[in-house]
Amino acid sequence: MDRNLRETMEAIFHPNAIAVAGASEAPSSFGYHFIRHLLDYGYPGHIYPVNPNKEIILGLKAYQNLGSIPDTVDYVICCLPASKVVDLLLECPAKGVKVVHLLAAGLSETGRQEGRELEAGILHTAKGLGVRLVGPNCLGIYYPKGGMASTYGLPQKPGTISAVFQSGGASQLLVRSGELHGLRFSKVISYGNALDLDESDFLDYLAEDEETRVVAAYFEGIKDGQRFLRALTNAAQAKPVIAIKGGRSLAGAKAAASHTAAIAGSEVVWRSVLKKTGVAVVHDLDEMADTLVAFSLMPGIKGNKAGIMTIAGGGLCVMAADICENAGLSVPRLPDDIKNVLKARAPGIWDWIGNPIDASLIVAGASSSFFDLAKEMASILSKSPAFDFVLVELTDDNPFPNEAWGEIVCAQTDAIIKLHKENLKPLAVAVSGGTFGNHVSKYKRWDILGAQKAKLVEAGVPTFSSMAEAASAIRHYADYCSFSLTR
Amino acid sequence: MDRNLRETMEAIFHPNAIAVAGASEAPSSFGYHFIRHLLDYGYPGHIYPVNPNKEIILGLKAYQNLGSIPDTVDYVICCLPASKVVDLLLECPAKGVKVVHLLAAGLSETGRQEGRELEAGILHTAKGLGVRLVGPNCLGIYYPKGGMASTYGLPQKPGTISAVFQSGGASQLLVRSGELHGLRFSKVISYGNALDLDESDFLDYLAEDEETRVVAAYFEGIKDGQRFLRALTNAAQAKPVIAIKGGRSLAGAKAAASHTAAIAGSEVVWRSVLKKTGVAVVHDLDEMADTLVAFSLMPGIKGNKAGIMTIAGGGLCVMAADICENAGLSVPRLPDDIKNVLKARAPGIWDWIGNPIDASLIVAGASSSFFDLAKEMASILSKSPAFDFVLVELTDDNPFPNEAWGEIVCAQTDAIIKLHKENLKPLAVAVSGGTFGNHVSKYKRWDILGAQKAKLVEAGVPTFSSMAEAASAIRHYADYCSFSLTR
Repeated sequence: MDRNLRETMEAIFHPNAIAVAGASEAPSSFGYHFIRHLLDYGYPGHIYPVNPNKEIILGLKAYQNLGSIPDTVDYVICCLPASKVVDLLLECPAKGVKVVHLLAAGLSETGRQEGRELEAGILHTAKGLGVRLVGPNCLGIYYPKGGMASTYGLPQKPGTISAVFQSGGASQLLVRSGELHGLRFSKVISYGNALDLDESDFLDYLAEDEETRVVAAYFEGIKDGQRFLRALTNAAQAKPVIAIKGGRSLAGAKAAASHTAAIAGSEVVWRSVLKKTGVAVVHDLDEMADTLVAFSLMPGIKGNKAGIMTIAGGGLCVMAADICENAGLSVPRLPDDIKNVLKARAPGIWDWIGNPIDASLIVAGASSSFFDLAKEMASILSKSPAFDFVLVELTDDNPFPNEAWGEIVCAQTDAIIKLHKENLKPLAVAVSGGTFGNHVSKYKRWDILGAQKAKLVEAGVPTFSSMAEAASAIRHYADYCSFSLTR
Repeated sequence: MDRNLRETMEAIFHPNAIAVAGASEAPSSFGYHFIRHLLDYGYPGHIYPVNPNKEIILGLKAYQNLGSIPDTVDYVICCLPASKVVDLLLECPAKGVKVVHLLAAGLSETGRQEGRELEAGILHTAKGLGVRLVGPNCLGIYYPKGGMASTYGLPQKPGTISAVFQSGGASQLLVRSGELHGLRFSKVISYGNALDLDESDFLDYLAEDEETRVVAAYFEGIKDGQRFLRALTNAAQAKPVIAIKGGRSLAGAKAAASHTAAIAGSEVVWRSVLKKTGVAVVHDLDEMADTLVAFSLMPGIKGNKAGIMTIAGGGLCVMAADICENAGLSVPRLPDDIKNVLKARAPGIWDWIGNPIDASLIVAGASSSFFDLAKEMASILSKSPAFDFVLVELTDDNPFPNEAWGEIVCAQTDAIIKLHKENLKPLAVAVSGGTFGNHVSKYKRWDILGAQKAKLVEAGVPTFSSMAEAASAIRHYADYCSFSLTR
């Protein structure tokens, strides 16, 4: 990353002051939203609303224009319509503005001649003045540590995942959805039409950024293929990169063109390009969130051998084994030392327990020693060199009434959280069978199970909503770990 | 289905009376559970607890043995250990018992010689006496209309889906999980080791059963391949069949052997066999539940052309298009008549809206006419002959504060429910981004969105948890509809 780009990124993430052009008190306008966000998320520098017709906006002194601000300003959030952007840019050099974030839509993505011309004029002006642009047609930055956000209700607590997203809305959904999975973010960048600063610039930055441990990316089109490949390869060498390529299908490519004026490539080309770089390719935001859980919450995995336990019965064990092997994980036999433990403590059933371990079988023994053994099974698996990681399934499949079932599932949750803290081996949990919006059912177990899932997420345990999601995410992670070992 | 089998099934689903052998007052025993279930779910016939040491069990008069019951008994639920089953069977003919459901585990699935011998003895005795068996090693029947259930907390309201499942636990999880998706069941059969009555018998029955509109099936091993193929083909000709084959992988096959003594075949053989019969093959219970939503809640689909609208922004539209096309659905351009409606009512943006429709773009127009147009878009799509079905995505991707966002999402939900009642065209909804156990977040929108999802499910709208799940399920259903048209 050259010095100029470093200074540009510094102005974006640590601006001395921020001006909001097109500031407004109308609560449905971006000129209102973005001042609110700076106030709500606690941006520590000066905030300068710019509006020629107001004295005060949201309690802050407003300025007629950039020129009347009594200070230099590194960063401008521009909520003005596209037609007024050039005039704003002309005011920037005098105030030392380094970067302008352009929300304005209605440019090249409309497919209209006038939009393309307006956009070209904006770029020409900015280049001439040495002002860099984020956008246009984008929601900009979420950087909770710096008190910056692109919308309401994002977590204020920062983390170590960063994201470079051509779609601002999608990036926000990833952050909000990610919170439900226990994910926290450092820097989330949306860059819209990528008129000036583009995917490669942000990848270069995140590759070197010390606050970023994992990179999530969503691209629709690429401005400069060769440079992009270099930037992506470089980033993927530095840290894990998980990417979605939007516009892989015919209809998707059309939608991308009218979303960010992107010229999308074919699925096949993309897959082969991304594969070579070691990037984990995923297909939608759900898969991305799950994959981020594995990459950001699990310690390194040495191989793909899974030790599996489920508190559900035999059918779920069969399906868990099928799902894991079909996802490319290995589900080896229980080693002799674990067989011996079972023989000693569950003599009636020991020879008929395999991997996945059917803990309901142990519990169904209905003696307290069996109950204790079931609680210890994840720990016993964790101590065995036969497995590279341990995967536990909690679900609602059990012949007991609510209270007895609740006792079993809560005891397992507590045992898992304890085991997670001991950190013997990578450990993940699939809480399966439940659904978002589960209050459609009066059945109490979903509440109990949902609460256990929330408890696991809060404790930082890598937690998934199904075996299939867990297996796919862990497979991506195992691939990455072996890729980074071999290079 | 021959007359004998019909009488056997009649005895299972409409028994004149039920005896529970091994009845008990110990609340952790199956002999307790199954009497509770008959009482709780309202079985209308006589219930006869059998226990030589008790006079009263759960308020019911208990009997020393079958012989002392003053009545004929069609159906016996046998909670006795395997070693006592033969003695019970010997008492059956005198009481006119037609079918015995055997819970006893610890037989051939243990892999032990003694288990296999015991099992062979039970079968030999039953055959000699003309008594049919469900199980052993199984949880039996859930038939809410008949007041029969295999566990606690299953819905009492019946539906038209029936299931034949080698795993009882998995069948119960499907029912409970299915309730969250708006699914209701007619007859759910688990048959464990399939010592006597097997998958083919139950398929033959469900194929002809008038209360069954859709069949869900989970098989681990097959007793008689030729007969099974005939039964499956016959059932799939009569009504849709959605099936999971458990034990497709090496580890899965091992787990199946110790679960139900099943000898599992390879994935490849299974897929090709099942494909020829027109069965929809799925891989886990989540996929099965989603697929059942499409099959049981959507009217017939004439083709695979999707009209899509999302209340999220452009990135989600791009991903929705990719997901749907990659799943084998078609996402055609908006036809001219809809373009003309947009031109008249959203002149600023009309030419830049495609399929998927980005309703956030319409709403972002921020005038009330735009807001109304967004609410009408699903209806406009439904009226167009360009599409075979309409798919709406509700999610949390929107720049507005909670109240404004809540208003939009609630208005859309109401509009969808109204449209669903009008039944113009098959309609489905994906409520995406949320997660089971979402109370890990303090963010109110998940509660609002979860409540909308529950409302949609309660109204009978086919509702999915993601675009990917919706697309995959609808693709299965579109395949079935075209398969049943061409035969």
